[in-house]
Amino acid sequence: MITPVTDSIRTDNTLALIRSLRAHGAMARVDLAAANQLSSATVTSISGDLLERGIIVERPPSAQQLGHRGRPKTLIALDPDAACVITIKLSINEVRFTVGNFCGELHHSDTQAVDTLALTAEALIELLVRHIDGLSQRLAATCGPVASICLAVQGIVSPVRGSIVWSPAFALRNVDIVSPLRARFACPVQLENDANCISAAITSHPDYMAIPNLAVIMLGYGVGMAMLIDGKPYLGAHGSSAEFGHTKYEANGALCACGKRGCIEAYVSDYALYRDAHTLLPLPAGDSAHPSEEQMQALVRLAENGNPVAKQIFAKAGHVLGTGIANVLALFNPDQVLITGSGVRAYHQLAPSLDQALNDALVEELIGQTRLATYGWDHDMTCMGAIQLALKAADHRLVQLDRSKALPLA
Amino acid sequence: MITPVTDSIRTDNTLALIRSLRAHGAMARVDLAAANQLSSATVTSISGDLLERGIIVERPPSAQQLGHRGRPKTLIALDPDAACVITIKLSINEVRFTVGNFCGELHHSDTQAVDTLALTAEALIELLVRHIDGLSQRLAATCGPVASICLAVQGIVSPVRGSIVWSPAFALRNVDIVSPLRARFACPVQLENDANCISAAITSHPDYMAIPNLAVIMLGYGVGMAMLIDGKPYLGAHGSSAEFGHTKYEANGALCACGKRGCIEAYVSDYALYRDAHTLLPLPAGDSAHPSEEQMQALVRLAENGNPVAKQIFAKAGHVLGTGIANVLALFNPDQVLITGSGVRAYHQLAPSLDQALNDALVEELIGQTRLATYGWDHDMTCMGAIQLALKAADHRLVQLDRSKALPLA
Repeated sequence: MITPVTDSIRTDNTLALIRSLRAHGAMARVDLAAANQLSSATVTSISGDLLERGIIVERPPSAQQLGHRGRPKTLIALDPDAACVITIKLSINEVRFTVGNFCGELHHSDTQAVDTLALTAEALIELLVRHIDGLSQRLAATCGPVASICLAVQGIVSPVRGSIVWSPAFALRNVDIVSPLRARFACPVQLENDANCISAAITSHPDYMAIPNLAVIMLGYGVGMAMLIDGKPYLGAHGSSAEFGHTKYEANGALCACGKRGCIEAYVSDYALYRDAHTLLPLPAGDSAHPSEEQMQALVRLAENGNPVAKQIFAKAGHVLGTGIANVLALFNPDQVLITGSGVRAYHQLAPSLDQALNDALVEELIGQTRLATYGWDHDMTCMGAIQLALKAADHRLVQLDRSKALPLA
Repeated sequence: MITPVTDSIRTDNTLALIRSLRAHGAMARVDLAAANQLSSATVTSISGDLLERGIIVERPPSAQQLGHRGRPKTLIALDPDAACVITIKLSINEVRFTVGNFCGELHHSDTQAVDTLALTAEALIELLVRHIDGLSQRLAATCGPVASICLAVQGIVSPVRGSIVWSPAFALRNVDIVSPLRARFACPVQLENDANCISAAITSHPDYMAIPNLAVIMLGYGVGMAMLIDGKPYLGAHGSSAEFGHTKYEANGALCACGKRGCIEAYVSDYALYRDAHTLLPLPAGDSAHPSEEQMQALVRLAENGNPVAKQIFAKAGHVLGTGIANVLALFNPDQVLITGSGVRAYHQLAPSLDQALNDALVEELIGQTRLATYGWDHDMTCMGAIQLALKAADHRLVQLDRSKALPLA
């Protein structure tokens, strides 16, 4: 899809400048040069090129700068409308379409309810094509051309083959989903595990960029993980590594959505917490196998108000999660474990038994210096990360087209 | 310790040729060139240099070759006496000293019984210095100078700091052991976890060199693991990754040598198997906390002869091991899991419940295409791997000294 670029140094530098501007916002050329260890001449040359092509814009010096002595510096920033990307998150009974602008900001989001477990592969692809077509037409007027598409799926996917191997959202297995979309849309299409999308969102954040070995655990409807080794996502031999949710808490334990027993997910995920809770506690009505955010919030409130059954449910989940994290520490010995996802809503309820389980499980030297932290969950981080991944593919394409200067963007 | 070499291409090529000859034995120059994707001229030049310095020797064509048509090719091989290395394996109540020749073959091995748990750091270092001194004097007459020393320790070590963080062999923690030996002996000294030594032994074997993601599980007195990611040992953020033996089978389970409960090691290691066995079965007398090979062999024979208690002990261990390996598959998704160590003696007894546990634990897609295999255990693989690691350091030094041509080898 992307042909090799011989002038690789200028390509790499251009990509680095675009990513700096996306991570940090508007910057003066001199600061951009320093941050990327480039000469001012290089930055001036590349930014001239990007300005001419409408990929970046100049901005007047900020009010803060005008208060300083010395000549105020003109800032450059990405043009948010230089291009946009579409992401599609496939979950149980829901397909979420998101549009990100060229700065990585959320431009549009809509959700379609659909009985995903009943879908055939053809119906799924038709649904996606129809919706992307509609979105592209509406977007053409308001923001740039669609430069890239990223699908995010809970479960096991093969990014290399472009197929959904297994997902709790589908009865289908081994669905080849990327090829039909690539054939239909003239832009890069990629498929990623939802947890890898979340790790992309987190590692595009300046605070986390520099952590070499980082385990990102996602709590929500399921329990996912992304593992960064030497700053790169570790995918394993066949692209299905870091399936933390399906490591075992106990043989023959609670039933998991994967069909097996005793997985961490079968105690810690939303469906597992709600499965235990809804028979004993007064909670909003609804599909107890796929609890809504409202139902989960109600369960957390009961625990916060001291309901002993609700507190016990979270204490057990924290113990299971801590035991699972102990295995991640023993096997991966990461610099940091970051817990995120909508399940972070209950972290205060999970934390005491989680800490206790870690201490019970490992000698001090194996817990070591690994930091354990949580990362707040405001926007849907899967979609925000998919936007980052889609933009990465778009950037490559932009820089490639920059060199040929003959093709339109999309 | 090793200063940078500017002529890095020739250095790399020289190291590659030495390692090829060590892995494959005597080779013709033309085959050596093909195997390393080098020109014949380069191989001729480097081998001329190595011949002159007595690092390689020429051998007449083999009998097999003489039967072929065409001019028989002269072979070159490493001189086994070009240098030697000393390895020291520290285990409970035993220190094993091994000498490897320059071809990586075992030249000498002796074992000293010592109450390791009662040792002070000073006494340990004095014991090592005294024994290495004695060995060096004896070796000077029979093989080359000592070019490198490698310590192999069961437990958690910091190769970077050169200290034993925690080991079941010692009451001590955080013992700085490398610095005193470096100060005493004029050669590289390194410290490695025993499982990493075993992975070095295995990956120096032509059959396993090309597997990118390989989990090597070692069964024996303890349960260790080495993880190769992209062909390189993965050490984690603080050098204590891949502690498979201390991942959990169950919270509050059997007591482990690390002091915690429910670790895989507490069910699968020799001491765990024997702990269960010796109260109920007729077995040779001895230290039941540190069973000998003879005691373990007796237990295996009982199971092979159909003793139901012995069979049940191994069936439980296989189930625990399979459950633990399921977690390794879910988190690392390796190309292959290789089970080795002296505990492989009972693999036939472990295998049925191990396979069953894997199938019970994971959906088919997560077991995936990972191959599970065993690797026979004749020589002590920890020592054989430590020899390989020590030779790697020696090679670097040799090539470095090659360039200065002023210093003696050791």
